[in-house]
Amino acid sequence: MTARNALYAQSGGMTAVINASACGVIEAARLHPETFGKVFAARHGTLGLLREELFDTTPLGRGELLGLRQTPGGAFGSCRLDLDDATANPRQYDRLFDVLAAHDIGYVFLNGGNGSMQTALQIDREAAVRGYPLQVIGIPKTVDNDIVGADCCPGYGSAIKYLAASVREASVDMASMSSRRGRVFVIEVMGRNAGWLAAGCGLASDNPSAPPHLILLPEVPFDEARFLARVNDWVGRLGWCTVVVAEGARGKDGRPLAQAATDGKYVQLGGAGAVVAHRIQAALGYKVHCAVTDYLQRAARHLASATDDAQAWAVGAAAIGAALAGQRGITMAIERLSDAPYCWHVSSVPLVAVANLERALPPDFIREDGLHVSEAFLRWARPLISGEAIPAFLDGLPRYWAHDLPLVPPRLAPYGGVN
Amino acid sequence: MTARNALYAQSGGMTAVINASACGVIEAARLHPETFGKVFAARHGTLGLLREELFDTTPLGRGELLGLRQTPGGAFGSCRLDLDDATANPRQYDRLFDVLAAHDIGYVFLNGGNGSMQTALQIDREAAVRGYPLQVIGIPKTVDNDIVGADCCPGYGSAIKYLAASVREASVDMASMSSRRGRVFVIEVMGRNAGWLAAGCGLASDNPSAPPHLILLPEVPFDEARFLARVNDWVGRLGWCTVVVAEGARGKDGRPLAQAATDGKYVQLGGAGAVVAHRIQAALGYKVHCAVTDYLQRAARHLASATDDAQAWAVGAAAIGAALAGQRGITMAIERLSDAPYCWHVSSVPLVAVANLERALPPDFIREDGLHVSEAFLRWARPLISGEAIPAFLDGLPRYWAHDLPLVPPRLAPYGGVN
Repeated sequence: MTARNALYAQSGGMTAVINASACGVIEAARLHPETFGKVFAARHGTLGLLREELFDTTPLGRGELLGLRQTPGGAFGSCRLDLDDATANPRQYDRLFDVLAAHDIGYVFLNGGNGSMQTALQIDREAAVRGYPLQVIGIPKTVDNDIVGADCCPGYGSAIKYLAASVREASVDMASMSSRRGRVFVIEVMGRNAGWLAAGCGLASDNPSAPPHLILLPEVPFDEARFLARVNDWVGRLGWCTVVVAEGARGKDGRPLAQAATDGKYVQLGGAGAVVAHRIQAALGYKVHCAVTDYLQRAARHLASATDDAQAWAVGAAAIGAALAGQRGITMAIERLSDAPYCWHVSSVPLVAVANLERALPPDFIREDGLHVSEAFLRWARPLISGEAIPAFLDGLPRYWAHDLPLVPPRLAPYGGVN
Repeated sequence: MTARNALYAQSGGMTAVINASACGVIEAARLHPETFGKVFAARHGTLGLLREELFDTTPLGRGELLGLRQTPGGAFGSCRLDLDDATANPRQYDRLFDVLAAHDIGYVFLNGGNGSMQTALQIDREAAVRGYPLQVIGIPKTVDNDIVGADCCPGYGSAIKYLAASVREASVDMASMSSRRGRVFVIEVMGRNAGWLAAGCGLASDNPSAPPHLILLPEVPFDEARFLARVNDWVGRLGWCTVVVAEGARGKDGRPLAQAATDGKYVQLGGAGAVVAHRIQAALGYKVHCAVTDYLQRAARHLASATDDAQAWAVGAAAIGAALAGQRGITMAIERLSDAPYCWHVSSVPLVAVANLERALPPDFIREDGLHVSEAFLRWARPLISGEAIPAFLDGLPRYWAHDLPLVPPRLAPYGGVN
């Protein structure tokens, strides 16, 4: 068998450690030149595949790969493109397979979340239909931790390490300012449908009265009266409290809090955190501060989890191993072997069992009152933030890497499609 | 001369390194037992002095002082209490001097910002009026960097190290998602009247097209049309851009943007960042994300600047030195001796030259177009973020320290005053 080229593509929202998966793919592929020729990286994911915008990673030396591994975001660019249905838009797939064939690509590694696994599945199925010899393998990545069939997803551990540290730090500040009673700190975190990130903030709590004191999850309908009573309890006890709000927190009617506030004559410029902050202020008269972590939580490579970084690398390298073993139509997955000591390995799940599905926080990870996480969650989550993978610093700031690879000269005419 | 006791008090808003100043005071005082008896720390600053709530720091060993130094916020508690005028409320000062006398306190070290220096000045003056032998010395602290008479203030370097790193990280994420053009990231930072924190974000920029692309300072009236045109330029060039907004950014009429938006029938739940994000979205149709760093920026001890940490310790220790030299009515100040190599030492300024004044960003630190900082600012600011003072981690999170010192038994009747 002669070696064929591989394509690596980053897809969907970014994480602090997705480039570690790129390193895993590139470094493991180089150990098997009999199977893998060049490793191309698509510019902006699937979009680069359609546009024939490919980088050849061959010139990257060890130092550059180290820089790549320490850099957040997607070094080769990502996109949020969903492929059309193959029967509805066959020209899109004609183009895609033309590009694969033009560059003798026999392996596609798609590094993404739920939606990207659907894209991987569509390419895999169409390859079979067309009889194009291709192994499509997914590499998981998402701060949302909502891919089914895995114990956890690379990207999540670093995000919650950053969030839990931030909750702890802001709360230490709150405590020192508590001479004037009646202060509340609200922090809004990502998570539209699943509360994994909000839940992760619970790791900051190392004793029963430590922050965060309340966590509003999308999985639990917001009961305003009960919530305000609990805020009041905590302020009565400590003089202050800290509340975590998932951006997707929703009311009993199932509508997101942030959306609800845009009704009528109000202009709502903030999100769920601002809404909750406003209600605490209006109902209880407390002084409320609100932080919105937004992209910071998924890009905070300076506080990445060493465990997460190792897992991100491992799923990339394991994808190469799976390709060597002849597998296709699967995605790699972190499987937990034991809690304490924390042991894990990389297994795989069929793409069809994963694509476009979403894993909510299981009920036993939520405390009975719905306003915090359970001990079971903390036991599960704690190993994921273990260890610090601190990047290189230059002039006082993390030094991130940007490649200057040229695009591979195109062999086809420019793509005529919209996407 | 027999040794007299010292009182250390934390005052105003917190920083990531204020406890390093506490360590500087405690550690330096212990070297001079002939002069300094016990070092008391007031619980919640001046409030603890009025309430006779004092901690005796004597039991703190070396390990505990190390924990103290690595912990953000004010370990002994702070407050935002302004003392009344001595002639208007002599009872408040009666109480204050009763507490000082009851515990044989001959030295007061007040660790705070502009407002706290006014408090220090009031105590100093009243001591002279009453003939109470007391040396009052200020120890500077503020993330706002707005104390006059100093080159920089402890707390500021760590805050801008965190902010510049955050801007860089979120922007790396933005760049990787730029296949869909027209995305803007807005980050709101503290600074009501002075743009020092917003300006510090400029350190993230290591080349002419690196983020942040635009910085909205309170010192420069917001010209919406010009600003939007520049956002448009950057998006045209890169497909995206990053904008820093000081919370105190204001319009040509001098009114804060955030406040302006609460007029009429609108309810504005966000601050200046949300307002700017909303205007970009409304005028240009771009997709805008907005992060609000709030307390995170002044508590992010995990990314503290080693230079800032060293300066915070040094102003504390130097205050002890000044007390030994018989000085009073002054505040310590960081003085710069040279830019490159960066050399500094601790000097002092009379309290009267500092109290209640505010130092705005000087015009030559602002770029000519008013939408960014100058090279002179970057040269000045860069050394302040140099070096990483990483705290101890336990179970994946920074391990912060909380004392369990008992309050010193009171010798007076409880305070009858409101404050």
